[in-house]
Amino acid sequence: MTTNKHALSVTRTQDFAAWYQAVIAEADMAEESGVRGCMVMRPWGYGIWERMQRLLDDRIKAAGYDNCYFPLFIPLSYFEKEAEHVEGFAKEMAVVTHHRLVGDGKGGLTPDPEAKLEEPLVVRPTSEMVIGAAFSRWVQSWRDLPVQINQWANVVRWEMRTRMFLRTSEFLWQEGHAAYADGEHARAETLKALELYRSFAEECAGLPVVAGEKPENERFPGAVATYSIEAMMQDGKALQAGTSHYLGDNFARAQNIRYQNDAGEIEFAHTISWGMSTRMIGGLIMTHGDDDGLRVPPRVAPWQVVIVPMLRDTDEDAAVLDYCRALVAELQGQAALGEPVRAMLDARPAKAANKRWAWVKKGAPLIVEVGPRDTAGGNVSVIRRDRLYQENGKLASTVQPRAEFVAGVPALLEEIQAGLFAEAKARLDANIRRDVTDFAGLERFFETGGQFPGWVEVEWSRPTGDELDAVDQRLKALKLTLRNVPENAAPATGACIFTGKPAVERVLVGRSY
Amino acid sequence: MTTNKHALSVTRTQDFAAWYQAVIAEADMAEESGVRGCMVMRPWGYGIWERMQRLLDDRIKAAGYDNCYFPLFIPLSYFEKEAEHVEGFAKEMAVVTHHRLVGDGKGGLTPDPEAKLEEPLVVRPTSEMVIGAAFSRWVQSWRDLPVQINQWANVVRWEMRTRMFLRTSEFLWQEGHAAYADGEHARAETLKALELYRSFAEECAGLPVVAGEKPENERFPGAVATYSIEAMMQDGKALQAGTSHYLGDNFARAQNIRYQNDAGEIEFAHTISWGMSTRMIGGLIMTHGDDDGLRVPPRVAPWQVVIVPMLRDTDEDAAVLDYCRALVAELQGQAALGEPVRAMLDARPAKAANKRWAWVKKGAPLIVEVGPRDTAGGNVSVIRRDRLYQENGKLASTVQPRAEFVAGVPALLEEIQAGLFAEAKARLDANIRRDVTDFAGLERFFETGGQFPGWVEVEWSRPTGDELDAVDQRLKALKLTLRNVPENAAPATGACIFTGKPAVERVLVGRSY
Repeated sequence: MTTNKHALSVTRTQDFAAWYQAVIAEADMAEESGVRGCMVMRPWGYGIWERMQRLLDDRIKAAGYDNCYFPLFIPLSYFEKEAEHVEGFAKEMAVVTHHRLVGDGKGGLTPDPEAKLEEPLVVRPTSEMVIGAAFSRWVQSWRDLPVQINQWANVVRWEMRTRMFLRTSEFLWQEGHAAYADGEHARAETLKALELYRSFAEECAGLPVVAGEKPENERFPGAVATYSIEAMMQDGKALQAGTSHYLGDNFARAQNIRYQNDAGEIEFAHTISWGMSTRMIGGLIMTHGDDDGLRVPPRVAPWQVVIVPMLRDTDEDAAVLDYCRALVAELQGQAALGEPVRAMLDARPAKAANKRWAWVKKGAPLIVEVGPRDTAGGNVSVIRRDRLYQENGKLASTVQPRAEFVAGVPALLEEIQAGLFAEAKARLDANIRRDVTDFAGLERFFETGGQFPGWVEVEWSRPTGDELDAVDQRLKALKLTLRNVPENAAPATGACIFTGKPAVERVLVGRSY
Repeated sequence: MTTNKHALSVTRTQDFAAWYQAVIAEADMAEESGVRGCMVMRPWGYGIWERMQRLLDDRIKAAGYDNCYFPLFIPLSYFEKEAEHVEGFAKEMAVVTHHRLVGDGKGGLTPDPEAKLEEPLVVRPTSEMVIGAAFSRWVQSWRDLPVQINQWANVVRWEMRTRMFLRTSEFLWQEGHAAYADGEHARAETLKALELYRSFAEECAGLPVVAGEKPENERFPGAVATYSIEAMMQDGKALQAGTSHYLGDNFARAQNIRYQNDAGEIEFAHTISWGMSTRMIGGLIMTHGDDDGLRVPPRVAPWQVVIVPMLRDTDEDAAVLDYCRALVAELQGQAALGEPVRAMLDARPAKAANKRWAWVKKGAPLIVEVGPRDTAGGNVSVIRRDRLYQENGKLASTVQPRAEFVAGVPALLEEIQAGLFAEAKARLDANIRRDVTDFAGLERFFETGGQFPGWVEVEWSRPTGDELDAVDQRLKALKLTLRNVPENAAPATGACIFTGKPAVERVLVGRSY
């Protein structure tokens, strides 16, 4: 560790939770809204979401899904159809009961008792029930299958304890929903969606993840199988960053999604669903942030290169600004990572040093300062956000000829994208222990594993029902959870560390968000 | 009129309202959801919205606005702050009163009485109140101004009578919100937003519009001035397609949006807001649709060129499909209207003739049929959706060499875009009467103006208050409304047709959606 003074008032090792809030506040990403459990996503936070949306949407469309939009409100009776699904969600939903306000006689407003809805409406916590109803209208014959649709939407799950981006009552997400003729096809597509998430997380957001199946007790309500990608935060905790569910014909039976096969028989379809949300932004912060703020991987950075002019309220300012504008235009003419470079000139009325540090905290990949000397010499002063300091602890700003810098930007952005991923990948790999062979060893690991212990991958017998509940309880006592069964894990060869029975596979255990 | 048999079962002249519903159904744009007042937007309808979003969003960002996201829920007390605003919206809002469901003891679910909210939450009908609260936190000094933000969101206004796209309880929109130091600046920016809408509507959606100020009685609740763009549908009715509001300091006072000016004094900011919604899609249908379905202007068409292979379940099919795939790739390599051409191969298992007519009804600008003879001869058979029939009433499909077609697609799409606008513009211009000089003449015009009478632009004295209400009532008796005062109208020279007083400007009158 260096002993630099950093841009944030609290470091990761001092207080990781406070550091997380500090990044969000100092990078102007989001703030409390005054509405319980709901946040305001400010331009830098929302801009990252827009970038993620664009990149993920391209992949979703390429996978053959069409975007649609379904109602925000779901009639209560829809939820009564799938018993397990209700059980899983019923406890935390926002319920609309009235459709009008009236004066309360004291100068305020109140729901109009005359305008009480006959059937309350639930604000969607997820859309299986309303999309399944559409599928039952759309699907009649095998020729209508598969149906593959995606929705970008806000959803609401009433949360008692909220944390910005990670757990908010309202959040933004995409939900993919599809119906297939048979279960094998549906399960294969569930795994394709999981792979889509893995590649998006790693290639775009720079988050290395472990893809695998969730244990039975962590399944989506009503699902036959739930798969997840799990990312490791810098405090060693796991973040479930995307899930994909094989629903079997459970929802099809509840919602009457049936088709006539080519032999003329009526069969139930098999459905899947998969979702990724603004929670990813929390994962981005806790993966790439440092004690100076966020570092945004170039692919998801709203601005990849920010130009800060050094203005002095003199006649030279006009020349500096002209130089900067030309520089922005040249950069925008370059392509990096498959898209035009996103470069902007920050000409707001504020001190250059304050602007520089604001962009450091926001994590723009490249910050370019331009003063009269640079203008005269045809140079630029470049700060790489991923290599902020020299070995002596001073800010690393390098003067380069402008043309050379512009020509090199595509390679530089690619290098930064790859470098942030490699750094996180090395941390993930270094912090999964695979040599724990009994429960005592697991306890010891988490007791003595230091401030940020990481995960263990252990052999287990894949218990179910009560036996699994017992495992869950033992882990819960240690504040641990089962994450997933990694799809590429080594085969099991020994005994289950929980049950002592012969192990059948390996499962990840860790603390989690 | 030709006597062709058309693709829709009902024509515009037979029953315009039924024709509108038929286009939406036959083009698979949207359908009833089973949730009162809410629709499901299907891929073709939502795809048009995505195209509109992309093009409008580019313009909004270019105007210096940043996208943000604010909460769906607005506490009741926020609405109590701005009296006029409440008055305008209080009657039609969805109110969340509970945050949990429980079993009702009869196998169903019911809102949990234990989980009643202390303060009910309103599902946003618009976001002035919650965004103003954020502005009051963000704005302290003149240096913080202007603040210009935009939000893409769903909003809910409880509607008794709904009509798909035109009036639904939930709809999708963008809302721009900005705060400025002074009123003059704010009003100028209100008009800039109006101009942004005009140019978007005309250049992208191909909807010719009249931009102007709404009369006092049609203002947004709490606004000092409301401006609109009004489009003329093929039945002569007006559709308000976008509005921009100058709010003065009314909302700033209600929400405490204050700043210190450069003399150190505290002043209220001046705010504006502006919105455009999925209603535009209704306008698109009623402007460009014909008796064969929709015709989508190329700029907002999800697919601009659709390739339909003529497959016969023979060995030749593989060659036809290869030929089509190569054609799609060549088309995607072309640029039209500033973007890569959007071409797709429709390889679904259905008859080619059914697919052709499905795309005619959806209104894809170019439909290209490819059969074994085309493949062998290096040709394509092209249908222009804007010139569907020959003079003899037969479908106009022209065989062209493939390379020639591909090279000509950019110019062809530009021609179709311009042609659809020109056709609608000619209709708008031909259907505004400007020679009506007294109220009897106005009555006569709408009584004898035929099935689709259009609008009149008359001179008036810009009455206010009770005098304006009287005008409004007289017009309402004729099912007419005041639309707007066109910004480019000729000066008034005579007497007000309503009050007999000297006229000060010209106002549009017509039936409306």
